[in-house]
Amino acid sequence: MSHNSFGHLFRVTTWGESHGPAIGCVIDGCPPRIPLSEADIQPWLDRRRPGQSKFTTQRQEPDEVAILSGVFEGVTTGTPISLQIRNVDQRSKDYASVAQSYRPGHADLAYELKYGVRDPRGGGRSSARETACRVAAGAVARLVLGPSVRIRGALVQIGPHAIDRAAWDWAQVAANPFFCPDAAAAARWDDYLSGIRKSGSSVGAVIEIVAEGVPPGLGAPIYAKLDADIAAAFMGINAVKGVEIGDGFAAAASLGEANADEMAMRDGEVAFRANHAGGILGGISTGQPVVARFAVKPTSSILTPLHSISRDRQDTQVATHGRHDPCVGIRAVPVGEAMMACVLADHLLRHRAQNPAHKDGS
Amino acid sequence: MSHNSFGHLFRVTTWGESHGPAIGCVIDGCPPRIPLSEADIQPWLDRRRPGQSKFTTQRQEPDEVAILSGVFEGVTTGTPISLQIRNVDQRSKDYASVAQSYRPGHADLAYELKYGVRDPRGGGRSSARETACRVAAGAVARLVLGPSVRIRGALVQIGPHAIDRAAWDWAQVAANPFFCPDAAAAARWDDYLSGIRKSGSSVGAVIEIVAEGVPPGLGAPIYAKLDADIAAAFMGINAVKGVEIGDGFAAAASLGEANADEMAMRDGEVAFRANHAGGILGGISTGQPVVARFAVKPTSSILTPLHSISRDRQDTQVATHGRHDPCVGIRAVPVGEAMMACVLADHLLRHRAQNPAHKDGS
Amino acid sequence: MSHNSFGHLFRVTTWGESHGPAIGCVIDGCPPRIPLSEADIQPWLDRRRPGQSKFTTQRQEPDEVAILSGVFEGVTTGTPISLQIRNVDQRSKDYASVAQSYRPGHADLAYELKYGVRDPRGGGRSSARETACRVAAGAVARLVLGPSVRIRGALVQIGPHAIDRAAWDWAQVAANPFFCPDAAAAARWDDYLSGIRKSGSSVGAVIEIVAEGVPPGLGAPIYAKLDADIAAAFMGINAVKGVEIGDGFAAAASLGEANADEMAMRDGEVAFRANHAGGILGGISTGQPVVARFAVKPTSSILTPLHSISRDRQDTQVATHGRHDPCVGIRAVPVGEAMMACVLADHLLRHRAQNPAHKDGS
Amino acid sequence: MSHNSFGHLFRVTTWGESHGPAIGCVIDGCPPRIPLSEADIQPWLDRRRPGQSKFTTQRQEPDEVAILSGVFEGVTTGTPISLQIRNVDQRSKDYASVAQSYRPGHADLAYELKYGVRDPRGGGRSSARETACRVAAGAVARLVLGPSVRIRGALVQIGPHAIDRAAWDWAQVAANPFFCPDAAAAARWDDYLSGIRKSGSSVGAVIEIVAEGVPPGLGAPIYAKLDADIAAAFMGINAVKGVEIGDGFAAAASLGEANADEMAMRDGEVAFRANHAGGILGGISTGQPVVARFAVKPTSSILTPLHSISRDRQDTQVATHGRHDPCVGIRAVPVGEAMMACVLADHLLRHRAQNPAHKDGS
Repeated sequence: MSHNSFGHLFRVTTWGESHGPAIGCVIDGCPPRIPLSEADIQPWLDRRRPGQSKFTTQRQEPDEVAILSGVFEGVTTGTPISLQIRNVDQRSKDYASVAQSYRPGHADLAYELKYGVRDPRGGGRSSARETACRVAAGAVARLVLGPSVRIRGALVQIGPHAIDRAAWDWAQVAANPFFCPDAAAAARWDDYLSGIRKSGSSVGAVIEIVAEGVPPGLGAPIYAKLDADIAAAFMGINAVKGVEIGDGFAAAASLGEANADEMAMRDGEVAFRANHAGGILGGISTGQPVVARFAVKPTSSILTPLHSISRDRQDTQVATHGRHDPCVGIRAVPVGEAMMACVLADHLLRHRAQNPAHKDGS
Repeated sequence: MSHNSFGHLFRVTTWGESHGPAIGCVIDGCPPRIPLSEADIQPWLDRRRPGQSKFTTQRQEPDEVAILSGVFEGVTTGTPISLQIRNVDQRSKDYASVAQSYRPGHADLAYELKYGVRDPRGGGRSSARETACRVAAGAVARLVLGPSVRIRGALVQIGPHAIDRAAWDWAQVAANPFFCPDAAAAARWDDYLSGIRKSGSSVGAVIEIVAEGVPPGLGAPIYAKLDADIAAAFMGINAVKGVEIGDGFAAAASLGEANADEMAMRDGEVAFRANHAGGILGGISTGQPVVARFAVKPTSSILTPLHSISRDRQDTQVATHGRHDPCVGIRAVPVGEAMMACVLADHLLRHRAQNPAHKDGS
Repeated sequence: MSHNSFGHLFRVTTWGESHGPAIGCVIDGCPPRIPLSEADIQPWLDRRRPGQSKFTTQRQEPDEVAILSGVFEGVTTGTPISLQIRNVDQRSKDYASVAQSYRPGHADLAYELKYGVRDPRGGGRSSARETACRVAAGAVARLVLGPSVRIRGALVQIGPHAIDRAAWDWAQVAANPFFCPDAAAAARWDDYLSGIRKSGSSVGAVIEIVAEGVPPGLGAPIYAKLDADIAAAFMGINAVKGVEIGDGFAAAASLGEANADEMAMRDGEVAFRANHAGGILGGISTGQPVVARFAVKPTSSILTPLHSISRDRQDTQVATHGRHDPCVGIRAVPVGEAMMACVLADHLLRHRAQNPAHKDGS
Repeated sequence: MSHNSFGHLFRVTTWGESHGPAIGCVIDGCPPRIPLSEADIQPWLDRRRPGQSKFTTQRQEPDEVAILSGVFEGVTTGTPISLQIRNVDQRSKDYASVAQSYRPGHADLAYELKYGVRDPRGGGRSSARETACRVAAGAVARLVLGPSVRIRGALVQIGPHAIDRAAWDWAQVAANPFFCPDAAAAARWDDYLSGIRKSGSSVGAVIEIVAEGVPPGLGAPIYAKLDADIAAAFMGINAVKGVEIGDGFAAAASLGEANADEMAMRDGEVAFRANHAGGILGGISTGQPVVARFAVKPTSSILTPLHSISRDRQDTQVATHGRHDPCVGIRAVPVGEAMMACVLADHLLRHRAQNPAHKDGS
C-alpha cells in the first residue's frame, strides 16, 4: 500500500523531486526474458520531453534514462528494474519566493498542511517532472503487453475547442505539436494557444487514450475493476479533474436503447454493434477497444497576479514569471498512454495468475 | 491486492451473490472503542433498499444487517467486524433464459470470457445487490470519521435534465424519491421518469457527493492521491462511466485565471475564494469541502428486445420483463456516500500513521 | 495489508471470536471451475476438531462449515468464497473472572495494552478456535494445488521426547491421537502425556510439515521468499515460538561440506543427494520436498496458580479449571498443513502470473 | 505485494545486483521532519562492510551511500527516500564458469528453474550484497523509532560453539571481529574459525537480536503478528534456515509452569518475572524486550569440490577459489538488527493509525 507505488504484479515505485540529483523508478514483477535496453524506453521519454515547441515549458531536460538493474545480456531477469534519470536543468537557486508563499491551484499549501514541511524547488514531489518515470515504466509495460496491444493517445479538446471526431486521423497526431488527430483543429489551436501564451494565461484540455487488441477478461470484480484502476491511474496524473470510460458523462443523458452495445455473430466471432461501454463491462475487458478520457485543468501558473497567503499567514500575491506552460494538457498525452499501458500489464499478469488457461502473446 | 477488498487500513472485503443464501462484508482495521450496533448501520441500508418508490426495482429485500464479530459489550474491539445480510427474495428459478444468453451492457459475457463460468442468478457477483455491503461498511466508516465530517449526496441530473444549482436545498433530498436537492427539478423528473418507466425504457443520471469537515492533509502523493482513490471508488460502482472532482470536465474549458482558487486570511484562518479544485490539491485535502460527481449509464435491462448472442454462439434477442429499474442512478446516491466515507476513513488512518501530530476527533 | 488476511493472490481473510455467533473466512482469488462443496472441506475440519481424545480440550464443537458464496452448480466461479462455521458450545457466562485479570502467557494483557479493550470470552480473537478457518481455507488451497502436491504433517516431539526419525511411517499418523509417525514413540507419549494431563500441567511440542510434488520455481526474491512466507505463516499460529526450514538450527552447527545438497543427473533429471535445504534455495522451491517445522510452547492454562495482575492493577493469582489442553501442539498439525497449503497455492498463482510458461496441473 | 518490497507503512523496496552499476532502495512512508543525512546511515553500513577482518570476504566495497530524494534542508519531507550505493569492486569478468554450472546450496538452479534466465555475476540478485540496502533502510527505521528504542545484535553461536550466556557483555560486541558478547568465547572462536578458514571450509552460526524500549501494543492479530513479521524478515535474509522468538524451540521441551511469564505490580508498573515469550504475546508487544534469533547455514562456497550439474545437464564439479567467507553469519548481525528496526518502525506506524491514543516519542 505504498503511497508512491502503483500496480500489484507489474508494480512501479517512483521517487525523486524536480530539483534533486535525479528521479527514477523501480519496476518489480516484470516477466523475465523480455529484450530490454535503454533504446526501448528513450523514444517514449523524448515524446514527453518539454521544450519541443513554443507551447510547452522551455525547461531543457534531456531526460536520458539509465537501466541500473534487472537486465542481463539484454533481457529482463525477473528481478527489479531500476530506471534513473539525472536532473540537469535544476536552477534551484530561484525558489526562495515560492518557498515563502503558496501558489493557488498548486500543492504547496496541501503539502505543508500534511507534512509540516515541503520541498519548494520546482514543486518538489508534486512536479510534473515525476511523470517522466511513468512514461519510462509505460515503455516497459508495452513490452510486457506485446505487439498485439496498441495504445495511442490524442488531445481531443483545448479550452472550449474540441476536435471534429469525424476527422480523426491517427497519423496527424505526430504531425502537430498538440498530439491532435484532427488537422484542421490543430491549425485553429495553434492560433488560439498562441494567444493564450502571449497573454500569459493558460487553458485546460481533454486527452483520449485508446487501447486496441486488449484481450478479453482483464479486470476483476468488484474492487479491482479495470475501469476503476484506469480511473485511479488517470486521476492521479497532475492537474487531472475528470475521467471517463466510453461514453462517460454523455451516458448519463442517454436512454437504455441508445446506450446498449448490441452483439451479433460475425464470421464466427462475437461482434459488437457499438462501443458505448468503452470496451469494459462489469469491470472486465470485452475485447473491444478500451477507450478512456481525462480532463486537465489550466495551470494557475500565470502572469496575472493571484491573491494568496504566505507561510507566515499574511495576505500576498503570486504571479509566475519566466518559464510558462500555456497548456499542461499537451504533455499529458504520453503520460496517459503510459498509465494505460501499466494498468493493462498489471491486469494481464493478475488475470493469468487466476486463469491460467488464458492465452496471450507475451 | 485482493480483488474484492478496498481500502488499506480501513479495509473492507465484500462477498456474496444476489441469489445465494447471504451477502456480507468483513471490515478490518476499524479503530477500537467505537460504540457500534446494528442500529448504527440499518438506517443507511434502508435508504438504499429497493422498492421504496415506483422508480426503483420492486424487488423486496429487508436488507437486515447482523454483526457477527468485532464488537463486545457495544464497542468495537479493533478486530474484524463481520456484517451479514441474508437474502430473502431470491426467485432464482427464473434465471434459465438469462443463463443461456448474454444481456448487452451487462457483465454476463465479460465474466464468461474471463472465468469460463458465471453465476447467472440475478447477475451473480455483478449484481447491484453487492452495493448493500458498501453501504453497511460506509456506516461504520462514518463513525470512524466522527461527527465533524459530514457526507451527503444528491442526484443532480436525470437523463438530459440537470438541476438548477442555485436552487440547491439539502433538505429537499429526503423529500422526494430522487434524492434531488432542487424541488422544482424533482417535480419535473417525476413526470419524465414516469414516462420512461411506462415505456419500459431507462435513463442515466449524475450523482454529486459532498464531504464537509474533511481535515486537511488526507491523501498522499503520488499514487495514493485522495482524488485518485475517490475516482477508483466511484468508477467501481456498477454502471458508472465517469468521475469528476470539483469542476471536473468543465475545468478543461476554462482559463487559468478563472480556475484558480485564490486564498486570503480571514479571521486568522486560511480562506479560499472558490472551490474549483473540489477540496483537493496535489492529491491532498485542503480543508475545503470535497466535491465529487459520477455519471451512471442507463441500464440495458429494457423492454425493447436487443440483439445479442447465446452461449452456444447463435444470434438471439434479449428483453427484460418483470422487475425493471428505470434509473439505476437513484439508488447509487447512498452508495456514493458510503464509498466516500470509506475512502476518507482509510485516508484518515493512513495520514495519522505517518503524521502523528495530526489532530482529529476520532 | 489487512491485519486479518494472508496471501496475496490466493487471499484469505478470517473473522470471528470464539464465543460470538460464528466464525468464518473469505477466500478471494480462487481460480474458477474447481469442483467444490462442503464435503471437500469438512473432513479437514474434523481432523482439527477438539474433543476427539483425552489429550485435547473437551470443548465440543461440530465445526460444520457452510459455503455462502463463490460456488455455482458445484464449481468455483472465481468470485469470493465465504465460509462460515456457527459457534455452538459457547458457555460465555463464565468469563467474568478471566475478564478481570490477565492470564500469564496469554494475549489478554497485550490486547488491552493495544486496544484499550478486549473480548475476554474464550480468548476472543486470540482463541485457537480461529484456526478452524485456516483449516477450511487450506482445504480449498489443496484443490488449487491439485493432486500432484501432497502436504502432510506430523508431531515429531512432545516435551523433551522426540521421535526416532528412522522409524518414520506416515501410515502411523492417523493411527494414534498424536499425529505421531513413530508407533513406539506414540506409545511412550501416551503414558507421558497422561501424567501431564492428570497433574494439570502442560507441555510443548514440535510439528513437521512436508510438502511433496511442489513444482520448482515457487517463491520470489527478495521479500517474498517461499521460506519467509512459510515462516510467517507458521509463526502466526497460536503459541508458536520457532520455525525451521530443512535442517533449521542444526545447520548452524554444521560445516559447508556436510550441508551442501550436491546434485547429479539421474535418468535425465536433476537429482539431489540430500535435502538439507528443505526444498528451498534462494527463497525458491527446487522441486525437492519442502520440509518445515515449528515449535509450540506449553499453554500456561494450568492447574497451578500463577502470579498475575488484575485489570485494576492489583496482584492476583490465576489458575485454569475445567477444560484443559495438556498439549496444544497436537491440534496444530492440521493447522500447519493448512498454512503450508495456503502459502503454496498463493505462490503458485504468483509464479504463473510472472512466468506464464510455467506448467502446472491446476 | 511487491516481491522486492517489505513493510506496509514504512515500506522499503530494494533493487540491484552485485555486479551492476549500483544497488539501492526506496523508502516510502517515512514520517516527515526527521533530521536525516548520509552521516546517519553510513556508520551502520560500515559495520556490515566486508573485508574488515580475515573472517569475512576480502571483497572491497566502500559501500558509500547517497540520498537522492526525500530530504530537504536536512529533514525528511514525507516523500520517498531514494538511497543508492555505487558498485565499485565488480570483477564481473570471471563469472563465466559460474554461469555454466549450478553451485550446490546456492540459488543458481532455483533462479533458472523459475525465470529461465539468471544473472550469474556474483550471484546476481541473490547476492548477500543486497543486504547493504537493508542496513541502510534500517538506519532510517531507527530514526523513526527514536532513541527510546534500542536494537542490538550479537553472534551467540559459531558452528557447535555457543557462548556462555552468563558472560554476556554488550560492550564486547564491538571489541572482536565476531560481534560476540562473550570475550572468552570470542577468543576460542578465533582459533576455531581460523582453522575453518585455512581448510577452505565454512560453518554456520546463530544470531540474536534484542530490541529494548519497544512500546507495548505493536503487532496485530491474526496475520500481522509482530513475531510473524519478524520471522519473515529474518527468514528472508540470505542463508537463514531457522527463526526463534523468546525461548524458541526450547519452549517445546518445557512445561507450562516453567514457561509462564508471571506478572506482578512493581512500583506501580506491570512487571514480568521472566521473558520466555520474548516480549510478544498473541502477536503483540508487551513492553518487555523483544528477543529473537536466527540460524545461518554454512555457505557451500568451499574449496572442496562438490558434485553438481551444468546448464547443459551434465554432471560436473564445483569448487570455490579466491575470495572465501568462512562464516557468512558474522556479517548477518547488522542485517538482523536492520530488519528488526524496519519491522518495528512499520508496526509503530500501523499501530498509531488504528490506535491514535498511542503515545510514542517520534
